[in-house]
Amino acid sequence: MSTSRIEAFSDGVFAIAATLLVLELKVPHVEPGELGGTLLGNWPSYATYVVSFLVIGIIWVNHHAVLERIRKVDRPLLFLNLVFLMAVAVIPFPTALLADYLKAGHDEHLAAAVYGGSMTLMGVTFGSIWTYAVLRGDLLHQGVDPVRARRSLWIFAVGNPLYVLAIGASLLSATLALAIYALLAFFYLFDVLPPLKRADMEEGAPEEPESAL
Amino acid sequence: MSTSRIEAFSDGVFAIAATLLVLELKVPHVEPGELGGTLLGNWPSYATYVVSFLVIGIIWVNHHAVLERIRKVDRPLLFLNLVFLMAVAVIPFPTALLADYLKAGHDEHLAAAVYGGSMTLMGVTFGSIWTYAVLRGDLLHQGVDPVRARRSLWIFAVGNPLYVLAIGASLLSATLALAIYALLAFFYLFDVLPPLKRADMEEGAPEEPESAL
Amino acid sequence: MSTSRIEAFSDGVFAIAATLLVLELKVPHVEPGELGGTLLGNWPSYATYVVSFLVIGIIWVNHHAVLERIRKVDRPLLFLNLVFLMAVAVIPFPTALLADYLKAGHDEHLAAAVYGGSMTLMGVTFGSIWTYAVLRGDLLHQGVDPVRARRSLWIFAVGNPLYVLAIGASLLSATLALAIYALLAFFYLFDVLPPLKRADMEEGAPEEPESAL
Amino acid sequence: MSTSRIEAFSDGVFAIAATLLVLELKVPHVEPGELGGTLLGNWPSYATYVVSFLVIGIIWVNHHAVLERIRKVDRPLLFLNLVFLMAVAVIPFPTALLADYLKAGHDEHLAAAVYGGSMTLMGVTFGSIWTYAVLRGDLLHQGVDPVRARRSLWIFAVGNPLYVLAIGASLLSATLALAIYALLAFFYLFDVLPPLKRADMEEGAPEEPESAL
Repeated sequence: MSTSRIEAFSDGVFAIAATLLVLELKVPHVEPGELGGTLLGNWPSYATYVVSFLVIGIIWVNHHAVLERIRKVDRPLLFLNLVFLMAVAVIPFPTALLADYLKAGHDEHLAAAVYGGSMTLMGVTFGSIWTYAVLRGDLLHQGVDPVRARRSLWIFAVGNPLYVLAIGASLLSATLALAIYALLAFFYLFDVLPPLKRADMEEGAPEEPESAL
Repeated sequence: MSTSRIEAFSDGVFAIAATLLVLELKVPHVEPGELGGTLLGNWPSYATYVVSFLVIGIIWVNHHAVLERIRKVDRPLLFLNLVFLMAVAVIPFPTALLADYLKAGHDEHLAAAVYGGSMTLMGVTFGSIWTYAVLRGDLLHQGVDPVRARRSLWIFAVGNPLYVLAIGASLLSATLALAIYALLAFFYLFDVLPPLKRADMEEGAPEEPESAL
Repeated sequence: MSTSRIEAFSDGVFAIAATLLVLELKVPHVEPGELGGTLLGNWPSYATYVVSFLVIGIIWVNHHAVLERIRKVDRPLLFLNLVFLMAVAVIPFPTALLADYLKAGHDEHLAAAVYGGSMTLMGVTFGSIWTYAVLRGDLLHQGVDPVRARRSLWIFAVGNPLYVLAIGASLLSATLALAIYALLAFFYLFDVLPPLKRADMEEGAPEEPESAL
Repeated sequence: MSTSRIEAFSDGVFAIAATLLVLELKVPHVEPGELGGTLLGNWPSYATYVVSFLVIGIIWVNHHAVLERIRKVDRPLLFLNLVFLMAVAVIPFPTALLADYLKAGHDEHLAAAVYGGSMTLMGVTFGSIWTYAVLRGDLLHQGVDPVRARRSLWIFAVGNPLYVLAIGASLLSATLALAIYALLAFFYLFDVLPPLKRADMEEGAPEEPESAL
């Protein structure tokens, strides 16, 4: 299977999961004159919406960067990607859970830990896709330096303890934990993958690299 | 109509049906301190979510493998594919039904049987797409050996009684039935279709293989 | 704008609207032993699900056939397509309305008429896309015979009174009206558009037909 | 990252956000004979559905026109686009809010202002994508005249005060504000971007324009 097919399906799941988040923003039904205060009191819903949307969006960018460096997809990689997508698609649930219990003012530590567990699952399964492709070797794009690819695995591995730390922060403060997840999302904005050398192949002819040999 | 168009539409339905499953995970509203126990008690929702997501994902892989071996799509095939997609898109309903009645602790045998009926419908309609293409013959990709394609129909036919067996298991235990469906999904991970010989055609020119002969 | 972009967006709306229909299938919460009877009593939900899914799927096929015969998309055509997609995307609402009032056993004639109105709106706006492209002329694909294209407008025009007839049937019986819409969907399975002569252009080079002249 | 990837993801969000709007149209459950009156009384839901669907659809057209004029996407642009998509994806929430409070007959001024704030956010973030690309310069397609591109920024800037004016109108009448947003959507139908000169490049080879020089 070509990576373009797996990308199209994954993009669909990313886009739908991100857009479904809005369904957790419920219209409050209040007495006359109370709408303003109620909407302001719903800030946890907006904050979790923004963090989850950005996380999904930024993970989408990185997922694309990983697939760009993969030449061929085999069945184990397909399955790893499926488990990763399952972790992405579930995000609206812990998002709503955290928002509702931040508002309720109780059990919010547990809700934040569940949210963190969901983020960690996504991070771990995402890392497993890249790790599998690098360790297998022959799945990598030829424009990727294998030595630098193996080195990049360390950076992936370092990210996961940060998630676990954030889960620990949930015990102190659910709001703090949410802020840490927002920060982690921003760190994902930096590209840690080895560069993809495209100089030796034209954009329009990625399938015929022999002309460059 | 080219298979690429039918694939794009089908991929959309697969991705949306899989991602909509999360809407069946409802945030419980409980008294302070009870969230942990309630979330744990909701295990049927998570178990059915995982099984249904993996089933849809694996069927997506196999659907792609079937379409890859089909050269041309005619109106009956379009219609068969549409009925198949209807069976895929409905999965969130039996999934929620099974989860809710596993939790309720009554009528779960019937709920599991309905879930099984939904899976069987998907299996049968999926098989009908491949069967129609093989029996028509001129719709098959020329890289597919017609003899092996006809032989593969037996493997498809063997799968359906397994689904019926699992429906029978629903009468004994709804949880057992769910486990069988999870196992059936994993069996789908193995490719039973005849190989597609691509050696004689370049990726960039799938429509003009005669230049390579 | 190329037709491929408008197709991608339209396909998305078709696939999502069809898949969202499942959200109208609600899990009933009943006393022990009553699930079977309740599920059977919910037949209007399944019947309307099937009809609406098939209608959306078949309209998708025909929409693709129309866009295939259009070479260029201008702003008015984009806008007509947008209004058409709005009529497609709204279908889950009249579908749920008809299902709920067939079950309620009252006001079902009005619900069926609203369903019919929604189908008529879809049919009329769909027809307007093809009508506009044919009457403008320079938007048509050069493989389309302009004389046969104009003649096909009559067939489109004939379809709309059938919808109005079905709305009238709603007054007699909501179930009868639903059956008529199912039949109308099947009639849409037949291709009424003029054939697209592709003999003079290669699949891989649709943008440079001058090489064939 | 190529613009085609960002377009595919953005198209998904547009299509899903537009189609999810239908979920805000709830089936009313009424006493026998009251369906007609209740459906008519729900006009705010239909009006807001139509305005929001058209706004999303027209913004989709303009988003495509902007991306067409961008040659290369860098990380800041990706991030700006992500924030813009977040503003698009949230639209079903203020749409439902405005519909519900127009029906409730109280707090509708605030609801209309929130709706306007959401539209303004979408307009401002959309403008920021084009502004960033124009000011950076090297991201623009070479078929775009830089002088005219800079001039077009003024037209973008002029649009935003109109949104703020409409928010002000919310204080007078929520219905009036909704009408103004509908009008603003129609103004977006006119293309204000500098033309994209394509004469010097073939459709099939957009990445190698040097061959034409």
